[in-house]
Amino acid sequence: MIASPEPLTSDLRVDGVRLLDRLRVLGEVGSTGDGGCARLALTDADRAGRDLVLAWMEDLGLEVGVDEIGNVVATAPGTDPDLAPVMCGSHIDTVRTGGIYDGNLGVLAGLEVLETLATAGIRTRRPLAVAFFTDEEGSRFAPDMLGSLTYVGGLALEEAQDICAVDDGARLGDELERIGYAGPLPCPGVVPHAFVELHVEQGPVLEAEGIHLGAVTGVQGISWQELTITGQSNHAGTTPMAHRHDAGYAAARIATFVRDLATELGPPQVATVGRIELHPNLVNVVAARATLTVDLRHTDEVALGEAERRLAAFCEQLAADEGVTITSVLLARFEPVAFDPAMIALVEASATELGHSVRRMSSGAGHDAQMLARVCPASMIFTPSVGGISHNPAEYTAPAHLEAGANVLLAVLVALAEVVS
Amino acid sequence: MIASPEPLTSDLRVDGVRLLDRLRVLGEVGSTGDGGCARLALTDADRAGRDLVLAWMEDLGLEVGVDEIGNVVATAPGTDPDLAPVMCGSHIDTVRTGGIYDGNLGVLAGLEVLETLATAGIRTRRPLAVAFFTDEEGSRFAPDMLGSLTYVGGLALEEAQDICAVDDGARLGDELERIGYAGPLPCPGVVPHAFVELHVEQGPVLEAEGIHLGAVTGVQGISWQELTITGQSNHAGTTPMAHRHDAGYAAARIATFVRDLATELGPPQVATVGRIELHPNLVNVVAARATLTVDLRHTDEVALGEAERRLAAFCEQLAADEGVTITSVLLARFEPVAFDPAMIALVEASATELGHSVRRMSSGAGHDAQMLARVCPASMIFTPSVGGISHNPAEYTAPAHLEAGANVLLAVLVALAEVVS
Repeated sequence: MIASPEPLTSDLRVDGVRLLDRLRVLGEVGSTGDGGCARLALTDADRAGRDLVLAWMEDLGLEVGVDEIGNVVATAPGTDPDLAPVMCGSHIDTVRTGGIYDGNLGVLAGLEVLETLATAGIRTRRPLAVAFFTDEEGSRFAPDMLGSLTYVGGLALEEAQDICAVDDGARLGDELERIGYAGPLPCPGVVPHAFVELHVEQGPVLEAEGIHLGAVTGVQGISWQELTITGQSNHAGTTPMAHRHDAGYAAARIATFVRDLATELGPPQVATVGRIELHPNLVNVVAARATLTVDLRHTDEVALGEAERRLAAFCEQLAADEGVTITSVLLARFEPVAFDPAMIALVEASATELGHSVRRMSSGAGHDAQMLARVCPASMIFTPSVGGISHNPAEYTAPAHLEAGANVLLAVLVALAEVVS
Repeated sequence: MIASPEPLTSDLRVDGVRLLDRLRVLGEVGSTGDGGCARLALTDADRAGRDLVLAWMEDLGLEVGVDEIGNVVATAPGTDPDLAPVMCGSHIDTVRTGGIYDGNLGVLAGLEVLETLATAGIRTRRPLAVAFFTDEEGSRFAPDMLGSLTYVGGLALEEAQDICAVDDGARLGDELERIGYAGPLPCPGVVPHAFVELHVEQGPVLEAEGIHLGAVTGVQGISWQELTITGQSNHAGTTPMAHRHDAGYAAARIATFVRDLATELGPPQVATVGRIELHPNLVNVVAARATLTVDLRHTDEVALGEAERRLAAFCEQLAADEGVTITSVLLARFEPVAFDPAMIALVEASATELGHSVRRMSSGAGHDAQMLARVCPASMIFTPSVGGISHNPAEYTAPAHLEAGANVLLAVLVALAEVVS
């Protein structure tokens, strides 16, 4: 718990055009040609994005370090070298059909804040750091938020290095070496004085209520499972329906159950089957094997556990009914996180001070800030997502909202780092 | 309609060990290491299988021809050069998880019959031909039975050549050239006097009833559709259930509907979703797009059409409910086929004459014989499939049943081709 800082009253503002320019230029790296981005963690496209942001960090004269899991931290020194840094940041990896704001905003707004302060000749007692963490999305290597989890000591480095990609099976440690981001700094890393992350909401709430910004109170718990169903491949024309052990049908039953479960339990329960793969995956063969993922999220740990239990019971009954076997591997499991009350209050007060409407809200998505919250006071600032669209090339946040978020980030960071001149 | 021939009474029998040997050797080409085979049409493995069987044909001194769609026909001359040949055959391509009997049996038993006759010095008035047809399975290029369909003029050569593979998108005509099987003989090909195909049942009926052989009366109608669902990709954690347009969920609903439909309509209706693909297919992204196939089969054309209509109506309602679009492409559509009564009677009488129990039955799977039935009298001989298992490495038919089937093929062929010495 940090001492409750007061929001900074100042006329200092970020350069919104410069921020937007950097977002656009980074968005061209791994562009999908439809306004979106595909920079899956530790791919060549991710390397190109990293190289670009790292060059920008160096251009600003920041001290840049890369740690053993590929997290990159750029630091502007404080006047008191003994004090822990105030850190902001997020991630620059994307899902395969990502937008240009998710993650990138928090990193580039952090850079924009440091450039604004440097240009204005403002120094702080504490060092100010901006970080981007490896593999936040978890699309290529599970669990998600892998880099920040390792940074805070929640996952052993060696264990993280041995994780294999879901797409091509590549080992994470090898991929880090391959793209040149297996750095020398140790994991776990330096514990910040506090951490704040600016991020797009990725949901419809702020836009629907006409509110500029969110002060994030915490993050939903996440349960990711991979289910593997083994049935029996057979001829689609000659095998009577009653004789089938159809792994594809069982996968479909789980996918519809998961939707029914979330609907029955009601908000804030959400549940998704985003990945299904059949084998041999042919039109005229009853599937022998199916792999699918289930993503369950809830703000309450007890409720999340209950959803997991209901799914397990359904799978057990389904396996018996269909004569298939169903095994489950937990890909990621994070309990709900509550952010530091003083940090939440600081975000809220800073937004109000700058004339923006703001509401407290929890996050439906996982974020690096929830990992940092394990070791230091943390919170987040949300900007509206038009239509609630996220993980989609059509993801969009209005420039005025991006700038508002960056200005609140500026205010929060200087309040925490204590301006000396 | 052919004149009703009498079954041949003779002591001549095939060499069952030699037949089994050839099945085993061909089964090693494209072996999946678990007793199964993967020789998808026009792949390198298919080429290797073709080269092997073609070499065997040439070793027997047969006249071998390859046509423009890659069908291979080996012919032993008759004493009357003006008569149309009696043809047998099947296919040697397999599904990705195929067994060693499906298709291969009909081709290698045909070779075995020709070798038996040659060894015994028996000549026939009509030429005797054994063929293997391109892409019977349709696993790589839809529709199935593509080679025999083109052989009888049911599909234009140019249209067939332009079909692209579902796995790697390769063009069929290019693949034929690549593996060296774009032959000079014209399509449509020579119309045979009659056609008979020996094949494993691929279903459980013969084994369950303890009957040696089946005299096949016809083939189920087949309807293959590829459905494409377009929804909206979104974040799995932040998108409320009610706001989703989830293509993956819609695909799952169709897969469970298809099972329910077949169960409600009852045998002989069968219905299968064997292929499902999601995009972007990630754990934490609501799927933007899904592609799935539906395989519907029935012995009655009116009933098959009714199943198609029920599926279309369900998809229309589902699209409205979920706010997704669903489009359908017909990959294959074959009406039920009735074989020639005299040919069925000949198969039945020949089996009985040789001391085998035999029953009339329809085929649940599509076969090349149904295409040949468009241009000449045709029928099939079925051997039992243990456990009804098919399109599976565990596919198995006992050696005694393989030999029984080949001996009935021998008897039917010589009856049709008329022994002169």
